[in-house]
Amino acid sequence: MAVNLNAPEPASLLVIDGIELGVAEAGIRKAGRRDLMVMRFAAGTRVAGVFTRNSFAAAPVQVCRRHLGGGQAIRALVVNAGNANCGTGERGLDAALATCTAVGGRAGCDPSQVLPFSTGVILEHLPVDRIEAALPACFSSLSADRWAEAAGAIMTTDTVPKGASRRVAIDGYAVTVTGIAKGVGMLQPDMATMLAFIGTDAAVAQPMLDRLVREVAEVSFNRVTVDGDTSTNDSFVLIATGATGAPMIDGDGPGYAALRAAVESVAVTLAQAIARDGEGATKFITVVVEGAADGDEALRVARRIANSPLVKTAFFASDPNLGRLLMAIGNAGVHDLDTGRVNLWLGDVQVIENGGRSASYREQDGARVMRLDEITVRTALGRGSATMTVWTCDFSYDYVKINAEYRT
Amino acid sequence: MAVNLNAPEPASLLVIDGIELGVAEAGIRKAGRRDLMVMRFAAGTRVAGVFTRNSFAAAPVQVCRRHLGGGQAIRALVVNAGNANCGTGERGLDAALATCTAVGGRAGCDPSQVLPFSTGVILEHLPVDRIEAALPACFSSLSADRWAEAAGAIMTTDTVPKGASRRVAIDGYAVTVTGIAKGVGMLQPDMATMLAFIGTDAAVAQPMLDRLVREVAEVSFNRVTVDGDTSTNDSFVLIATGATGAPMIDGDGPGYAALRAAVESVAVTLAQAIARDGEGATKFITVVVEGAADGDEALRVARRIANSPLVKTAFFASDPNLGRLLMAIGNAGVHDLDTGRVNLWLGDVQVIENGGRSASYREQDGARVMRLDEITVRTALGRGSATMTVWTCDFSYDYVKINAEYRT
Repeated sequence: MAVNLNAPEPASLLVIDGIELGVAEAGIRKAGRRDLMVMRFAAGTRVAGVFTRNSFAAAPVQVCRRHLGGGQAIRALVVNAGNANCGTGERGLDAALATCTAVGGRAGCDPSQVLPFSTGVILEHLPVDRIEAALPACFSSLSADRWAEAAGAIMTTDTVPKGASRRVAIDGYAVTVTGIAKGVGMLQPDMATMLAFIGTDAAVAQPMLDRLVREVAEVSFNRVTVDGDTSTNDSFVLIATGATGAPMIDGDGPGYAALRAAVESVAVTLAQAIARDGEGATKFITVVVEGAADGDEALRVARRIANSPLVKTAFFASDPNLGRLLMAIGNAGVHDLDTGRVNLWLGDVQVIENGGRSASYREQDGARVMRLDEITVRTALGRGSATMTVWTCDFSYDYVKINAEYRT
Repeated sequence: MAVNLNAPEPASLLVIDGIELGVAEAGIRKAGRRDLMVMRFAAGTRVAGVFTRNSFAAAPVQVCRRHLGGGQAIRALVVNAGNANCGTGERGLDAALATCTAVGGRAGCDPSQVLPFSTGVILEHLPVDRIEAALPACFSSLSADRWAEAAGAIMTTDTVPKGASRRVAIDGYAVTVTGIAKGVGMLQPDMATMLAFIGTDAAVAQPMLDRLVREVAEVSFNRVTVDGDTSTNDSFVLIATGATGAPMIDGDGPGYAALRAAVESVAVTLAQAIARDGEGATKFITVVVEGAADGDEALRVARRIANSPLVKTAFFASDPNLGRLLMAIGNAGVHDLDTGRVNLWLGDVQVIENGGRSASYREQDGARVMRLDEITVRTALGRGSATMTVWTCDFSYDYVKINAEYRT
């Protein structure tokens, strides 16, 4: 059901020198599917990450934060699907650390140089023994050209693996950026999405890499919502191997700007892929809020529109029941909103003019836009100059079906 | 599909001396159903109301606020279903005022002594001519014993009319309280629910009536949510005719307390009826948050649980996928939440103990509670002594169906 989204051609996901990927079947939750993925990094690689703001951050997220803050170089990461290892207390932390120990043993590094990630059901204990049993197969499959397989191994209710690559010239060096992501539900990332990994062979100093991952998260994964529920396991990790041999990017300048543009382009593509593959999605919706007093206000209005069950079911039905958009804007908690200055367009059709139904609006024009499978809602609040864009999907029978039957 | 909710027996809705009700078919949106209701009040009646906090308050809400603030005694109210008269600009205000003029002409009072209410589709113009044409039939049906019919005439996607009565002795006088309400979707009242009217024959001074309507709204209609979307037309009106001849309640004291208890009991019954008849509901869910630092925090956590699409679909599926409850609590934005102090019970079964899966928890115990059609989720945050209760329903295929097909 993904909206205008196909699995990336494996060859389109470009190799990043210094990163190898391996996959295996661990049978974490279901047999007969690849659900374990390892990435191994060459010496000199730098890693930065941002993680969920949910108070119940999962055990692997807690371990990632500790290992990234420990000052040691990260040399590998491990991802399991089928179990989130969240709400599992000390036993969950032990399980995440045991996974790091097992991976570190094979990668030839300390457990503190391994980042663990989990995605799946919350409140169930992680079967570490199955991960340990599958690691030999996972390591023996390590190869630089397995990005597409890795994208498949981290999926849960995703219907399409998600990946993208860009190539950009920086200081005369050809720099490559490749990323993969997963996540289609419990999805309104509040720092980054549920598992996105972007690698580059650029050389980036740690402070600039830390800044880059935050800046890019803000304009990509943090702009997507499927259902307004922020996962306990959201993680976005950026890996820079420096394998091009180009000079280190250690401050602002054209090199940073060029790399940022490439990383952002990959991240936005992945973020939009998440909304296109949102649980039960039949439509891809872009919500643009203009003329807000500040960015927070713009984001609040955009998310309120994008998360309203009534707005989302109207899109599913292709029904221009557009008063629901007005209702959602009015609920965004904008202090002293002068409704008489609010305008709204559905695609190229003005629906709301100065706070009320536009005199020029005709139902058949709204219906024409609503039948499309990619729709932009744009509203201007008339309060300032801040603008924000959010990507989402509609709300269908299949969202209910997928989430009612998730564990069966 | 309403959960353990039947239409009230007409005789169970007790007459309020001083209030007459009439209904008629105006054909606002659909033919062949009663969609117009008028209440007429005896001289000496006092009226107080609370209304939506949505920035796009509908035209009738704006007129109600103006008429209630005008200092003149309210002598009638008029309600139409099928059209919300919202997002309709000056023309919408004119339509609401024209309705007041038509009703005032028949009730023998000034238009400013009439309160108008509308419920239905947003962003469409109100056909005042149809209301005017149906008013003669509506007025000729005026009678004190038509509360049940009135409850039916104000419904939109409601499947069951909602009403309740209580009788209480105050200062030796028998005081009666009767109320009706409608609303099953676009429903997270932020002051009062979408159309609730409660009448009493008690005599209440205006300042105490204004206080009573606010106090009761806070613990009844403001504690319900179906989908987290606050309507543009929410209105809760309390009418005190004083027909018992009892002394005026003009301050705190046992009389006020007794009346408040009776009005609150009617309001809570109506509020719960709204959740029981929530769009597509198959289960009635009570969410209790204890041990919060303050009431706002408790309400925020309770609403986050009650509005999470993932929590609601798990209830629909009777699936004890209870990690979703933990996820929702973690998303409520509670500053510095010590997750290690959080406990959670599903019915009588402890699921989360000190922030993690309870050692005593067994899946079959959770499954047993989830199969019930009335379920209480109780969580203790371990931060203070504030408590809050919210009522909601689950999220089913039929919610999507009802809202995707609402206008067809």
